[in-house]
This record gives sequence, structure tokens and C-alpha cells, in this order.
Amino acid sequence: MSVITIERKVLEKNDAIASRNREFFAEREIFTLNIVSSPGAGKTSILERTLEQLEGGLKVVVIEGDVQTDFDARRVARYNVPVVQIITHGACHLEAKLVQDALHKMDVTGADILIIENVGNLVCPANYDLGESMKVVVLSTTEGDDKPLKYPGMFRNAAVLLINKIDLMPYLDCNLGVLRANALQINPSLRIFETSCKTNAGIAEWCDWLRLNVRARSKGADKA
Amino acid sequence: MSVITIERKVLEKNDAIASRNREFFAEREIFTLNIVSSPGAGKTSILERTLEQLEGGLKVVVIEGDVQTDFDARRVARYNVPVVQIITHGACHLEAKLVQDALHKMDVTGADILIIENVGNLVCPANYDLGESMKVVVLSTTEGDDKPLKYPGMFRNAAVLLINKIDLMPYLDCNLGVLRANALQINPSLRIFETSCKTNAGIAEWCDWLRLNVRARSKGADKA
Repeated sequence: MSVITIERKVLEKNDAIASRNREFFAEREIFTLNIVSSPGAGKTSILERTLEQLEGGLKVVVIEGDVQTDFDARRVARYNVPVVQIITHGACHLEAKLVQDALHKMDVTGADILIIENVGNLVCPANYDLGESMKVVVLSTTEGDDKPLKYPGMFRNAAVLLINKIDLMPYLDCNLGVLRANALQINPSLRIFETSCKTNAGIAEWCDWLRLNVRARSKGADKA
Repeated sequence: MSVITIERKVLEKNDAIASRNREFFAEREIFTLNIVSSPGAGKTSILERTLEQLEGGLKVVVIEGDVQTDFDARRVARYNVPVVQIITHGACHLEAKLVQDALHKMDVTGADILIIENVGNLVCPANYDLGESMKVVVLSTTEGDDKPLKYPGMFRNAAVLLINKIDLMPYLDCNLGVLRANALQINPSLRIFETSCKTNAGIAEWCDWLRLNVRARSKGADKA
């Protein structure tokens, strides 16, 4: 029981810092995504395709979270956007404090969107608010259509589901109708896009939706 | 700092129960696998193929760990082996105490192997000893060849790596040579098998190796 109490305290402390991050973003009219998924579902590839689509329009800054290595930050840096890598050294999720620290290391002046790529983990990041505008969960078709029911926390807390690697559908025993139904059973208001970073399917639709949301939620409509 | 101290205490308590589990298995000459992976890498499918291969030979019992649902226990029960489902209700890994509790609910008399399927998570289960003989990490080719370097804890603590879904290789940007080299860089003594639960590639080799290890490590060579 004592462990549960401590966990609650950890979450309360995290939520307090997340609120300060949220104020920081609101003051600067920065729309913030927290991208979550299992390892290898394609978060970084989605981010790369998104940066390509948004180039010349919205100004994007990126925070990369990884257990180990700076591979992802190096991939993202090729797109000429400001990026900070957080290495958690074994910890299984980002916390609001780590994001707060990263914000002190980057210039977010004029940024329209901050994209935070979380650690690859479909369980733990669900409980840690970073101060984001919304969570985006990426699920690969290769993971199977039962995953929303097996890992409901993440799908309940997300606003968007990107069903990724749809180019692999012909080779898999994954039923997209069942996957969608399972996801909507957990969270009926989930906005779903089917994407492929190989064929670019669905990427333009996802980015159009993202632009609309950035314009609607921040006051910076004229920037875009 | 207090959080780190508490985490250490949690791990010490877990390790103490894991030691008792290990004694329990040693007394009964039960070889125990702790199967770990990301969600959807194919742990349950590997387990199903393994049960098919071992049928009529070694006696297997199974503990299924999931955040939510008893889908996997129901899949395994079709193979007529004793199975207990642990639902963690949001927790991101199995702990030794949960396994101890499950053992009280099942008859392991005469069992040669206990296979524990952990929660789908490539980070947290690495640190929680369940009292197993060895950890087996399953990595899907779809997750990419960089994963051993990005999630080193799990690969460092495992004895076996099953590179699964190799049937999908023609459709992926995954280099098996790089994947193997990355895994062996983290853990040079890792035993690697390439498997497919669709074509059954590598399953017989994996199960032959498993039988040899069960015979060598337990004294029950005559049972097999």
C-alpha cells in the first residue's frame, strides 16, 4: 500500500510540472504533440514524414525521448528543425520535468508546434502528462488488431490513433475493421488515420488535420 | 533521491521473492522461461508453436501476464496445457510475487517447463527477476535493426533472442546482419534464432535447443 501512495505522489508532482509546461506552451501559442507507441511502430518515421509535409509552413521544434542512443535526434536533425535528445538511461517513459529541462536547452521562439517523441512503450507513458495538447498513439499493423483491448490505457488517453505500416497488410493476419472497432470501443472519440511511411499513404490527410487543429487551438492562424 | 531509494527497496523485495520462486523450481526440477518483448512481437504465437513442437514430450505449464484481457490464456488453453492468467490492471511488468501467487493456483506436479509470458514491454520487465532459468527476448523484424542498441537492458539480461516474423523480411528495411551485430554488441553470449510463426521457420531449431537445455539443467533427462 505504501508503494501505491508513493506512486500517487510521484504522479501528483509530475502533474504539477506538466501544468507549468502547459502554461508555458499556452503563453507562446505552441501546439504540443506527445507521440507514443511500442518500440518500432514507426514514431520517428511518422515524425520525418510529418516534417516533410509541414516544411515551409508551420515552424516545428522536436524533443526526442529514448532509453539509450541519440539515433532519433540525428535522424530528425537532417530536417533542419531544432531538436533536443533526452536519454532516460533505462527509465521507461518521459516525465514533465525532463521536458521542462529540455525546453531550457532550446530556442522555441516563433514555434507553432512542439513534437515530443516519447520512449517506445505502450504502457507507462500513458500515465505521465507532459503538458501536451494531445497524445498521438502510433500502432503498427504488425502488432495485431487486439492491442487496443490489451493496452487500453494508452488508447483511452490519446486523441489520435495512427494505424501505421498499412503497406504490410497483404502479408499479415491483421483485420483493420476489428482493429478500428477495438480502438473505438476503448475510446469512441479517437480520430483514426491509416498511414504508411513507405508509400506516404495517409500522411497528407494526417498533416492537413494537424494544421487545422494548430490553427483552431492556438491563435496563430495567420502564421500557418 | 527518495524515489530512487524506494525503487531499490521494491527491487530488493522482488529479488527476495524471486529467489524463493527459484528454489521452488529447483526442488521440482522445473526449467522456467520468462518471455519478453514489445507488444505484438509474437510472444504468444511463439508459445503456441513451441507447445505444438513439445507436445507428447516435455510437460509444459504456462503463466500468462497481461495488462488487460485473458485473450492469451484462452489461446494457450487450446493446447491442453495448464495455464493461469495474471492481469496486472495497468502495471507494466510481472513481479515475482505475482508469479508466486499464480503458482499457488496451478498444479505443477511433473512439469518439466514453466513458460511465463510477460507483459508486452521492452523496458520495464528487464529489471524484475521472476526466478526464471532464463529470459527469452522476442524481437520482430518489423521493429527495426536498431532496437538492441535503443533498449539494451532487455538484450543484456536475456540468454536467447528470437528474431521473429522473418517471413516479412522482403517487405522491410531491416538488415538481419546489422540486427545480429547490434544484439551481440550488447550481449556477446546471446543465442540467436530466426523464426516465423507463419512458415514455422526456425521453430524446430529453437525447440531442439530448448529440449537440450531442459535436459542439461534439470536432472529430468529421462523424462524427455
